[in-house]
Amino acid sequence: MYFHDAETLERSALEKLQAERLKKTIELAANSPYYSEVFKNNKIDPSIIETVDDVKKLPFTTKEDLRSQYPYGLLTQSLDNFVRLHASSGTTGTPTAVFYTQKDLDTWADLMARSMYAVGLRKSDVLQNMSGYGLFTGGLGIHYGSERLGCLTVPAGAGNTKRQIKLIRDFNVTALHIIPSFALYFAAKVRAEGFDPADMPWKIALIGAEPHTEHARKKIEEMLHIKAYNSYGLSEMNGPGVAFECTQQSGMHIWEDSFIAEIIDPETGDPVEDGEIGELVMTTITREGMPIIRYRTRDLTRFIPGQCKCGRTSRRIDRIMGRADDMLILKGVNIYPMQIEKIIMGIPEVGQNYVIELIKEGLVDQIRVKVEIKEEFFVEDMRALQGLQKMIAGKLRDEILVTPRVELVQHNSIPKSEGKAKRVIDLRETED
Amino acid sequence: MYFHDAETLERSALEKLQAERLKKTIELAANSPYYSEVFKNNKIDPSIIETVDDVKKLPFTTKEDLRSQYPYGLLTQSLDNFVRLHASSGTTGTPTAVFYTQKDLDTWADLMARSMYAVGLRKSDVLQNMSGYGLFTGGLGIHYGSERLGCLTVPAGAGNTKRQIKLIRDFNVTALHIIPSFALYFAAKVRAEGFDPADMPWKIALIGAEPHTEHARKKIEEMLHIKAYNSYGLSEMNGPGVAFECTQQSGMHIWEDSFIAEIIDPETGDPVEDGEIGELVMTTITREGMPIIRYRTRDLTRFIPGQCKCGRTSRRIDRIMGRADDMLILKGVNIYPMQIEKIIMGIPEVGQNYVIELIKEGLVDQIRVKVEIKEEFFVEDMRALQGLQKMIAGKLRDEILVTPRVELVQHNSIPKSEGKAKRVIDLRETED
Ligand SMILES: [Zn+2]
Ligand SMILES: [Zn+2]
Repeated sequence: MYFHDAETLERSALEKLQAERLKKTIELAANSPYYSEVFKNNKIDPSIIETVDDVKKLPFTTKEDLRSQYPYGLLTQSLDNFVRLHASSGTTGTPTAVFYTQKDLDTWADLMARSMYAVGLRKSDVLQNMSGYGLFTGGLGIHYGSERLGCLTVPAGAGNTKRQIKLIRDFNVTALHIIPSFALYFAAKVRAEGFDPADMPWKIALIGAEPHTEHARKKIEEMLHIKAYNSYGLSEMNGPGVAFECTQQSGMHIWEDSFIAEIIDPETGDPVEDGEIGELVMTTITREGMPIIRYRTRDLTRFIPGQCKCGRTSRRIDRIMGRADDMLILKGVNIYPMQIEKIIMGIPEVGQNYVIELIKEGLVDQIRVKVEIKEEFFVEDMRALQGLQKMIAGKLRDEILVTPRVELVQHNSIPKSEGKAKRVIDLRETED
Repeated sequence: MYFHDAETLERSALEKLQAERLKKTIELAANSPYYSEVFKNNKIDPSIIETVDDVKKLPFTTKEDLRSQYPYGLLTQSLDNFVRLHASSGTTGTPTAVFYTQKDLDTWADLMARSMYAVGLRKSDVLQNMSGYGLFTGGLGIHYGSERLGCLTVPAGAGNTKRQIKLIRDFNVTALHIIPSFALYFAAKVRAEGFDPADMPWKIALIGAEPHTEHARKKIEEMLHIKAYNSYGLSEMNGPGVAFECTQQSGMHIWEDSFIAEIIDPETGDPVEDGEIGELVMTTITREGMPIIRYRTRDLTRFIPGQCKCGRTSRRIDRIMGRADDMLILKGVNIYPMQIEKIIMGIPEVGQNYVIELIKEGLVDQIRVKVEIKEEFFVEDMRALQGLQKMIAGKLRDEILVTPRVELVQHNSIPKSEGKAKRVIDLRETED
């Protein structure tokens, strides 16, 4: 069962639809001050699009482009026709703003409803929206999607855990929209209030508001006795509802009838091989008010090869593996810290802490991974430790295609940083 | 120019429409567990309604009834058909909850759009919604209305004054939805940030979220250089959008094609004379999911006699003058503390503080109003003070129809209470 026919279109039909919509999008975008200029300079008009692959003929749009065009430079029509805006906080420079016509809001609500349907929500469900509302697209995005799907929507907003629990119990809430970093705290609060999460009416949690690991998902599912689903979105592409997991939990389906997704090498801008990690680039093809072409999301992911068991034909992306800005280049190979983390965290002997150091060996750049070993494994048996070291280096090489130096260190010997851990340290200037 | 034909219907046509819709509402309400029981016990069916006046044949619904029916007792259809709920916080006992079908949300958004149109908002306006979202009906109510009207809506939410100001300037915000108790603080903040409110792009403020005085409105208008409009709503009747001022600022038009309004004596339940103060009683006549019949709002107001200059034919109510629970009965006359406050605050010699005392004079109840006189007027000239005392007593008698005792006291001699001032003190048991 699917919410929309587009979810199961044959690839050829889907790509035909994408090409048509891309053509139309270029027509529309040409009405905006920004793209009319860009198209003129690059001699772009709708006729250059014959297949969806021709999207590659178009120039990228970056966050900096959006900033320089703040607030109105990308609008294709008179401001009168817009009914909503969302804006980034702009704490680190000029903010960015995204504007929606009523039709754009309808399209977005449909995409959200489709997303929620894909994880099993139906009109008989009761969804409690536990995220903040306001300029953050996650709040109103989920809210409109939930109403569109016909779920009874409880606009609880953030905070007030006690009251959240009361609402959930009073109204038999079956689905939560909850920020993953809040979910574990919430589970503890539920227990502290004297309730067993297993007895709560909920079944499904939407936790896509922040990037998180598979490990974090499992933990949330276990602690809350719930099925937790990841999703992907960004305000430049409406907000949530760009890509969503299905009940298979094996990657996030991109709603390709509304977005063209590419994955590129962030250095060269060229497409990566299918299945390789790179920067996600997105083009809106159903947005009328403020289309954005080949937007450099800076988010790292990969296309998951093959067909999903759910029957949807749209491609899936893997969970976000970091930011393109974190990428390291070593011996001509792109390396993402998240790749290293994924391998390290999968090794039982390794503790919570590690650090990636960029060093110079003679004239050559090299990576050194310092890994804390759990106390019980940090024995004086040199042979065992050397074996472990070799094993880790081998696994890393299989993932990142170069062999890094691996150093095993004692539990608690790597300084813990406040807040977000600094995982990559560049020592190339200080060390020889 | 009006948003909807119903705003200027001839009274006879309007009342015919109301009667039809009331009949339909009774039919619908009979599907709810609560009203089916109430109607059976009171032998009520749609046939007893011939004119809108027949609403008086129906029993009242009180807050306590809603509480006893929490959460689902008033629903006319399966929970599946509802897409939204709003709930009171229930800090003082069982909460109440209001449920909306999609059609109910559409009706509400239309009423809100109509309300905003009445104060001069058009699709070319940019509205910044500075109230919190979530379960509070004011946030999503204004938000949906603004989008329905076609305004560019900035869902700023509450808090973060600096950012609010930046958004207002960046996007040329012409209208604010702002809580009146926050408006003066906000005006000060705008100045502190180095901006002159007169230079800000705004023109219109919607400040109906909390009851406030005409004096407070004037102050807000002056400080923010804005036109500020009052409105009336309550979550049991959707939320905001029940009654709204027009640009005349002379009372709030009730949207009578959606609500039947009565004003009754809170003691007897009988209608008061036209223009007299009493408790507002409201009946929904366009709500399908959860109709509420003759709801005792406990809010005190009066119908404003005569026609509004704007041309709308719907009746207007005065700003809310307190809660029915505050009513005093003296010599068989209902007296509302707000009536006394209004008179006292209109007298230049009087300071900020006053108190109403209920006393016994022999066997008879009496009211004593203690009034602080501004320092410059509190002279030793007994004659002047006696004259002032007489004048105040006379003005009060004209308003409340009994002559109270008036006592003039010195500035700062009435103890100030923390938080909300306790304005009525019952001394009948302690004093003889
Ligand atoms: Zn799938
Ligand atoms: Zn009027």
